[in-house]
Amino acid sequence: MGTTSKIIRLGLIGAGRMGSFHGLTAARHIPGACLAAIADPTPGQAARLAAELGVARVYTDPQQLLEDPEIDAVLIAAPARSHAELVISAARAGKAVFCEKPMAITLDEADRAIAAAADAQVALQVGFNRRFAKSFRTAHLDVVAGRIGTPQLLRSLTRDPALNNPAASPQWVIFLETLIHDFDTLRYLNPGAEAVQVQVMADALIAPAYKDKGFLDTAVVTIRFDNGAIATAEANFQAVYGYDVRGEVFGSAGMLTMGSLNDCDLVRYLAGGIQADTQRMDTDLLRDAYIAELNHFVECVRTGAKPLASGEDARAALAIARACIESFQQGKPVAVPGARS
Amino acid sequence: MGTTSKIIRLGLIGAGRMGSFHGLTAARHIPGACLAAIADPTPGQAARLAAELGVARVYTDPQQLLEDPEIDAVLIAAPARSHAELVISAARAGKAVFCEKPMAITLDEADRAIAAAADAQVALQVGFNRRFAKSFRTAHLDVVAGRIGTPQLLRSLTRDPALNNPAASPQWVIFLETLIHDFDTLRYLNPGAEAVQVQVMADALIAPAYKDKGFLDTAVVTIRFDNGAIATAEANFQAVYGYDVRGEVFGSAGMLTMGSLNDCDLVRYLAGGIQADTQRMDTDLLRDAYIAELNHFVECVRTGAKPLASGEDARAALAIARACIESFQQGKPVAVPGARS
Amino acid sequence: MGTTSKIIRLGLIGAGRMGSFHGLTAARHIPGACLAAIADPTPGQAARLAAELGVARVYTDPQQLLEDPEIDAVLIAAPARSHAELVISAARAGKAVFCEKPMAITLDEADRAIAAAADAQVALQVGFNRRFAKSFRTAHLDVVAGRIGTPQLLRSLTRDPALNNPAASPQWVIFLETLIHDFDTLRYLNPGAEAVQVQVMADALIAPAYKDKGFLDTAVVTIRFDNGAIATAEANFQAVYGYDVRGEVFGSAGMLTMGSLNDCDLVRYLAGGIQADTQRMDTDLLRDAYIAELNHFVECVRTGAKPLASGEDARAALAIARACIESFQQGKPVAVPGARS
Amino acid sequence: MGTTSKIIRLGLIGAGRMGSFHGLTAARHIPGACLAAIADPTPGQAARLAAELGVARVYTDPQQLLEDPEIDAVLIAAPARSHAELVISAARAGKAVFCEKPMAITLDEADRAIAAAADAQVALQVGFNRRFAKSFRTAHLDVVAGRIGTPQLLRSLTRDPALNNPAASPQWVIFLETLIHDFDTLRYLNPGAEAVQVQVMADALIAPAYKDKGFLDTAVVTIRFDNGAIATAEANFQAVYGYDVRGEVFGSAGMLTMGSLNDCDLVRYLAGGIQADTQRMDTDLLRDAYIAELNHFVECVRTGAKPLASGEDARAALAIARACIESFQQGKPVAVPGARS
Repeated sequence: MGTTSKIIRLGLIGAGRMGSFHGLTAARHIPGACLAAIADPTPGQAARLAAELGVARVYTDPQQLLEDPEIDAVLIAAPARSHAELVISAARAGKAVFCEKPMAITLDEADRAIAAAADAQVALQVGFNRRFAKSFRTAHLDVVAGRIGTPQLLRSLTRDPALNNPAASPQWVIFLETLIHDFDTLRYLNPGAEAVQVQVMADALIAPAYKDKGFLDTAVVTIRFDNGAIATAEANFQAVYGYDVRGEVFGSAGMLTMGSLNDCDLVRYLAGGIQADTQRMDTDLLRDAYIAELNHFVECVRTGAKPLASGEDARAALAIARACIESFQQGKPVAVPGARS
Repeated sequence: MGTTSKIIRLGLIGAGRMGSFHGLTAARHIPGACLAAIADPTPGQAARLAAELGVARVYTDPQQLLEDPEIDAVLIAAPARSHAELVISAARAGKAVFCEKPMAITLDEADRAIAAAADAQVALQVGFNRRFAKSFRTAHLDVVAGRIGTPQLLRSLTRDPALNNPAASPQWVIFLETLIHDFDTLRYLNPGAEAVQVQVMADALIAPAYKDKGFLDTAVVTIRFDNGAIATAEANFQAVYGYDVRGEVFGSAGMLTMGSLNDCDLVRYLAGGIQADTQRMDTDLLRDAYIAELNHFVECVRTGAKPLASGEDARAALAIARACIESFQQGKPVAVPGARS
Repeated sequence: MGTTSKIIRLGLIGAGRMGSFHGLTAARHIPGACLAAIADPTPGQAARLAAELGVARVYTDPQQLLEDPEIDAVLIAAPARSHAELVISAARAGKAVFCEKPMAITLDEADRAIAAAADAQVALQVGFNRRFAKSFRTAHLDVVAGRIGTPQLLRSLTRDPALNNPAASPQWVIFLETLIHDFDTLRYLNPGAEAVQVQVMADALIAPAYKDKGFLDTAVVTIRFDNGAIATAEANFQAVYGYDVRGEVFGSAGMLTMGSLNDCDLVRYLAGGIQADTQRMDTDLLRDAYIAELNHFVECVRTGAKPLASGEDARAALAIARACIESFQQGKPVAVPGARS
Repeated sequence: MGTTSKIIRLGLIGAGRMGSFHGLTAARHIPGACLAAIADPTPGQAARLAAELGVARVYTDPQQLLEDPEIDAVLIAAPARSHAELVISAARAGKAVFCEKPMAITLDEADRAIAAAADAQVALQVGFNRRFAKSFRTAHLDVVAGRIGTPQLLRSLTRDPALNNPAASPQWVIFLETLIHDFDTLRYLNPGAEAVQVQVMADALIAPAYKDKGFLDTAVVTIRFDNGAIATAEANFQAVYGYDVRGEVFGSAGMLTMGSLNDCDLVRYLAGGIQADTQRMDTDLLRDAYIAELNHFVECVRTGAKPLASGEDARAALAIARACIESFQQGKPVAVPGARS
């Protein structure tokens, strides 16, 4: 990138935990981009982050940010329930959009978001970070290259380090916000195939008191793909050893495994045995992936290329998540509706 | 064990691949025992193995071996469909019984086998080898000791290295003969809990031509236990990298993983990357476990202790396998009937 | 860091491979700093990098950069033989100095560089990157905390991925430029102790034709420390599997090992065995450490703290390297002169 | 092996820790052999082991065992200082000999032992167990096959789990009894090459009070081989995490590493990080190698083949050990006398 390249001016919507992290990444680690504005309706939240990152423009109303002509593209890290409408508004305002997962909560919302971005001819990327983690990316390319033959069995899991505030959690969060990562990962590791059927076994084992309120904290999903492959997605909200993300794809010619819990390559050999530290947070474990996905987004904005984690990918993962809710409610396998709109 | 201890005289029924392996183990690696007789109806089979191992008594009819007063205990490694009847006959003949898995094909058979051993007051052990693999055994003890809190998610998998002769395979072999190991392993890693519900997704992906004949080569089973834990059992018949057996148990206070594919601790760093060899066969991967289970059996015969892998354990795993067949046929979750007879 | 913090303006001297890498790091990944000027005597070299990184000030004479009042601190990545004089000039010009290793080639030079920085009261940091690699840093802290008791045996090794241009290599480069890292690492892993004796075994095994010219490509150094610990430092210039940096410290209460060659956490299980990719370059393997050391430098410039990898550390490592040259020439152990000036 | 093969009748000389272990191995795990006699001058020692293993013939004088015509071959596990004379006596008595390392303490003794076995035309094998450990054996074959090109750097280490009774330890035990393993391993991993020079750095760091008595507990030896390769051998007598044996060979086309401290493939992920158990004793870590070396010996006795770990190998390793003593005493590098007698 030469000095004449246009700097992409990013606006951040949402200055909570993930928003702050994306803001820091955007401000510090993305060559060719700058973080130019922050919006958050919580009083003081945007201003605080802006001060920390040296960002001049601060809004409480995201719509104001969307109307700011100095902004080329937005990063949406607001509560999940507002994602789709923000994507649509941003697209209509002519901004390229990076939206944290999930892009939408209903398939209709997803369709409208995709259509809005298409109509406005703006880039739309979704925060499926594992597509940008080196091991998952290399595994995807290995599968595409045929190194393990035809996928037959897959596994993807997400275990959060600590359950916080189940009372405030939206319903079906385990499917719509956590396993949505795994559904996308499984599609990514089984390229070209689509889910056709799911069956769910889920429960509230960490916080059983919240089960009545529709809060599940432990889930195993089995997915059949249209190429015959059978996949397992698994989530839990309290892995005391730290954030745990792993993947596995087994095919007719071999297997690939991804994911390490080790914090670094230090190993201790002590009287009590072998000991090593683990990563604790998603932003530690997947730090390089978070940087890579924003770099990819800025590159797509600059070049007009279609992002690797697209609105259609978000919709396909959502279709699986919605089918999971139905499977859980009905206590039986259900078909996944056609994943492509 | 002092010199005055009685040598336990073992008779082997079945001189095929596993029978030969058990015969070799019994003849070579079990202090306090000797292999004294071999029976196999296939012409020449018993004689060939007997010659190799220096065993004097050779029978074509297993019943003759059972009637041989010089035999204290039998090792049953005949085809699975004959196991239960052989267990019953052996018990009636007053012989202690080590029976390869599965001990029975139907729950009724299993009940009769257990009753026969109880009536005859002979030891009855089933070949659930992973209970004798050091890592699985230590994991079990760790869970019992509460080191990972309450189990919430479990996984056990078996992948055979190569599919051979699907045409000759009995129906539902993947549940009754392969995953039966995993069903037992999951019970072993979730001690005191019993399976209450299963749901199956299975297919013939390696040899699709045999699917019509009821031959499945790839399966994922999800199991709910009565302590809330949700488990996955997974099998496939063609892992080109070699025999693959792994386990995982995740609980409220941590996770244990078991299983390594490495053949030994040699690692190669070459221009093409890092390279290591894998184990190829179950008898390589689990060699020490096979020796340990026979040692345990001989010890139980000597002391009158109840074997760790009992007839009741075999029945409980079989109950899961039978429920899997039903779940597969009905395409929905099914309850596991009370696992204790 | 708030918006009112002064941005530290960095000037880069040397735009070769490492200079370009440091320049990129400084320009992209160091919050609170900017890369403001580049100097390199090679025609066009500074301009090319400046264009790539969007840096406005370009010099061919480093002295001009040192006289630029807009520059707060300099990064020296020129040829090793010029380091000490540049450090001295920079200090006299009142600039804080980050200098790539080795800071000096003779102990006299080192003393003068340290004195110049002290006289000018400017920060002086040396590019001992492993002090900023997470595993080595944690190991150091573990040893300080007594987790492995008293160090007794240590190991540090550096293997470069490919020998290039031995004809152009300065004499004793393996000790002065490569093993200098390991000498520092061993001091870092044996905190508070100093080397008292070295003995060397070295050779030209990759490019034997250059041995006559004083070019060694393979060396093993044994070092005795004043706390009794015995250390091995090992280097080679052609590791076909990629850049290899590892450390080990064994003490009365345990052992720590550092260093992994894996490129990422993807593992392949194929018919030919287990396979994984390796890191190839120092700038891949130690990328995070390179970023961390510059962040540390900028923080020291801002706060006035003394850098963790100081001029005195550089001198102590150099004292070991010089003793190695003498040991090699004399074919016997030699004492390390008092490492503190 | 058919039933007509002659059973090799083994006699054990020495019923201490290693002798008991070899006796157990010989009695239990070596097809085609039996343990027929035990001799130990310590009152009751031989009888106790004989009772445990069911061995009928018990001697207090090893010479009586050597004269027993029912014995085909002997296993010598007596104190190291008596090995060579026992080898010579056994050979003269026409017995094949397996002798624990070191076979001899002086080169003259070694030459006489080799000559005695040659004169008597009996097999002579030395207990260099790592040649029979799968990873070391495979590494040796890889090097022979050229998979890592020409060896340039090697490492072998032995760390015993706990120092016991330094007061009773013979002089130079670290070179003659511990590092002798590593000297042989380095020759094994650098096949066809011989050591030409050694230099030693050693100390008494665990038990400094015994240094005056010539007792060293920590040593690093650097060895130059006649193919240019430079090797490090390292030993320490108190690794609190357990018995530690590792090897590494780096060549022009790659590197091989051997040795794992893990007790089994169970890994624990807990709130405090990742944890695994280690092996504690040599007889755990190298159990399969101990079985394999006795199997090899019995096979050599049966077939007349020359053992892989020969008297000449023992002499070559001893020549390195003797040079180490000299190097330590003189404080400088010394030449290794021609390793082949």
